[in-house]
Amino acid sequence: MLRMETIQYNLPQSRIPLAWYNIQADLPTPLAPPLHPGTMKPIGPADLAPLFPMSLILQEVSTEREIEIPAEVRQLYAQWRPAPMMRARRLEKTLDTPAHIYYKYEGASPAGSHKLNTAVAQVYYNKKDGTKHLTTETGAGQWGSALSMACAFFGLDCKVYMVRVSYDQKPYRRALIEAFGASVTASPSNETESGRAILAKHPNSNGSLGIAISEAVEMAAKDPDTKYALGSVLNHVMLHQTVIGLEAIEQMALADDDPDVIIACAGGGSNFAGLAMPYLGRKLKGQSKARVVAVEPAACPSLTKGRFTYDFGDTGHLTPLVKMHTLGSTFMPPGIHAGGLRYHGMAPLVSHVLNLGLAEATTVQQLDAFAAGIQFARSEGIIPAPESNHAVAAAIREALEAKAEGKPRTILFNLSGHGHFDMQSYIAYQAGKLENYEYPEEEIAMALAGLPVIG
Amino acid sequence: MLRMETIQYNLPQSRIPLAWYNIQADLPTPLAPPLHPGTMKPIGPADLAPLFPMSLILQEVSTEREIEIPAEVRQLYAQWRPAPMMRARRLEKTLDTPAHIYYKYEGASPAGSHKLNTAVAQVYYNKKDGTKHLTTETGAGQWGSALSMACAFFGLDCKVYMVRVSYDQKPYRRALIEAFGASVTASPSNETESGRAILAKHPNSNGSLGIAISEAVEMAAKDPDTKYALGSVLNHVMLHQTVIGLEAIEQMALADDDPDVIIACAGGGSNFAGLAMPYLGRKLKGQSKARVVAVEPAACPSLTKGRFTYDFGDTGHLTPLVKMHTLGSTFMPPGIHAGGLRYHGMAPLVSHVLNLGLAEATTVQQLDAFAAGIQFARSEGIIPAPESNHAVAAAIREALEAKAEGKPRTILFNLSGHGHFDMQSYIAYQAGKLENYEYPEEEIAMALAGLPVIG
Repeated sequence: MLRMETIQYNLPQSRIPLAWYNIQADLPTPLAPPLHPGTMKPIGPADLAPLFPMSLILQEVSTEREIEIPAEVRQLYAQWRPAPMMRARRLEKTLDTPAHIYYKYEGASPAGSHKLNTAVAQVYYNKKDGTKHLTTETGAGQWGSALSMACAFFGLDCKVYMVRVSYDQKPYRRALIEAFGASVTASPSNETESGRAILAKHPNSNGSLGIAISEAVEMAAKDPDTKYALGSVLNHVMLHQTVIGLEAIEQMALADDDPDVIIACAGGGSNFAGLAMPYLGRKLKGQSKARVVAVEPAACPSLTKGRFTYDFGDTGHLTPLVKMHTLGSTFMPPGIHAGGLRYHGMAPLVSHVLNLGLAEATTVQQLDAFAAGIQFARSEGIIPAPESNHAVAAAIREALEAKAEGKPRTILFNLSGHGHFDMQSYIAYQAGKLENYEYPEEEIAMALAGLPVIG
Repeated sequence: MLRMETIQYNLPQSRIPLAWYNIQADLPTPLAPPLHPGTMKPIGPADLAPLFPMSLILQEVSTEREIEIPAEVRQLYAQWRPAPMMRARRLEKTLDTPAHIYYKYEGASPAGSHKLNTAVAQVYYNKKDGTKHLTTETGAGQWGSALSMACAFFGLDCKVYMVRVSYDQKPYRRALIEAFGASVTASPSNETESGRAILAKHPNSNGSLGIAISEAVEMAAKDPDTKYALGSVLNHVMLHQTVIGLEAIEQMALADDDPDVIIACAGGGSNFAGLAMPYLGRKLKGQSKARVVAVEPAACPSLTKGRFTYDFGDTGHLTPLVKMHTLGSTFMPPGIHAGGLRYHGMAPLVSHVLNLGLAEATTVQQLDAFAAGIQFARSEGIIPAPESNHAVAAAIREALEAKAEGKPRTILFNLSGHGHFDMQSYIAYQAGKLENYEYPEEEIAMALAGLPVIG
């Protein structure tokens, strides 16, 4: 019998990490503080209390290196963690590359993406601190699915503001969120002042993540029993996602291999941070030389063409300002862009590590992303989420570079979710209806000119 | 720290079974032979050669107990096997039952169901025996997805006849099949005599599995380089699925538990056979006392209300006749029935073990099936395929019986697939648009009266 090639590098349930890794403990310079949207002065924990439970606020500002994962959260993680790490051997053969291509597969979570890692943690802390209702936004729907599932697990009420265009185009994603018992409202809606203000000006608004965030935040701020949950951007969300990288480090050791390059797509930044931060922590200690690459769509280039400055997290300017790579809170990705990652900003922590030179950023065009997704599906079986296609495309690019050089290269990327609820974008791609898009420099300049001027 | 409860009972890649288990070696009485559709006489391997490669024909008639899984197939299995076995502890708590509920999760395969277990095996043998093109049918779409994926892995051309109503209602399932490079035709089509004959009589025919099988078989029979692949019913398909039960036996040992009852839904019979046959093999040796339960929809009750007799596998009467539980090859499940499992017959092997009293059958009404699916999703995160909901409902029924008795009961069921491509049926359920349906006795009697009379 032929010797089997190892495909899976899986860990037992007992190896679910005991603590999240907080890179803030190891950063050479600290993060800039968030600012109050009214006073533009640094805010303290109390300022965030209307929106978040105190446990999460304390995590948001913590500089402890390790933050213990509560037993109840680890118990829930056991439903799908440790997540699989696989070697894409058939893709390697198809590409005829000397590179080793590994992927961490977060789409194996019951919610279909990495988002559940922070959803169960956030709902746990909310429950513990007495929250009765949670509000949130969702764009492509991964976050809404994850949060509604976590709320079902803990018996919390959940209300999701779903960007109008997704609400209309993705009835099945909405049905999934509703199956978990959450209520879903198309955003902009008439339920909030922020929503009504947008609708007054643009009655047919397609909505945006920035608008939906404003609506969810507004509803939470009104009622002491209601809090708000965000699926990316914030420090505590990055923190919860570090289980991805912590597991990957163990799994790469199982594979007796070490990544030369680590790749993840970046919209708000959470799946990138999840894989990258634990490796960056090692890099800061001289234990890893891996290049760390964030991949964004050419149509939404906050890291590669945005400015690293203070900006609002939402369109209605209700959130604190954070220092991040941003295209301006009025940014609207073009309609031809089908593939997620449509947020104007980027997590402050991700922006900061890029600014420190610890990581780099690159862009992928939409057609290359979908072509990569199809190639991956035909080799590996899994049809990636459009967001994850950007990481796949960058991984293939690295593998082909290695081939051109005739040298080995070990590539590890984050396959952050599956595309089962995104088939409409594959239909559009296969029908030739998607286009590449380069955000025009003058439009970027205009959007950036509108950024708030701080200090 | 709280002790973690074990949720996962997972095996390493090295524990993928080395051989499939063939219960034909252990049956007290052999299967009745298939009959030629023209002569009504028993057929030999050569009669099947126009449709199947000889390797699979030999497996179809084999009475060897163990059939080695080729290394190439095990290597592909390593993409998703050994499949997870989980304990549904949150569901147990929700039900407040003393029962232990375990499920084998076949939806973790990249194709989203157990169907990939036989798809990769069938495509492997076809490739080995020189097949260039494969034709098949698909109803709900699980099988079409699996076969097209396997064909992509092996570089075989694949053509799928998709039941018209699914083709129209499930564009995303179709898009998935097309993403793997297969071509998809709505059935009945104008491409075949069988299809044209149906369309002449019923121009707006919704199609059925029986019709689509006729079309796929007709295309394969015409061309020596083209073979046909069936996703259920046949002995070699049941055989390939036994990896499910073989792994489950090891995983139950890891859990230090032993099932009192084993449950799977049954349409054509393959996911049921996959889990059940290895346990029935133990039962025949006195090593297991588990009750083995096949669950079918009340709207398609071939095991509970059909006749155990010879019938055609397809509507066009092109296939051999096999002895099975059948409602007659003209059977059409009612339109209000949303949930898969719509085939008129049942695998001869499954029919035979039921007839021998080794297993039992029960029915679940549609509304109970979906209610169970929603309850499962809110407890365990996974939204089951509508087919699998029947197994979930039966498992919950057993758990509630155990609760009523105040006695423990160990339940193992097969969660054969996820429902990501079936959300339309959940939308219909949540909107109150689905109904229960009891197939009227007089209609069954009429359908059975039309069965061929043999011997």
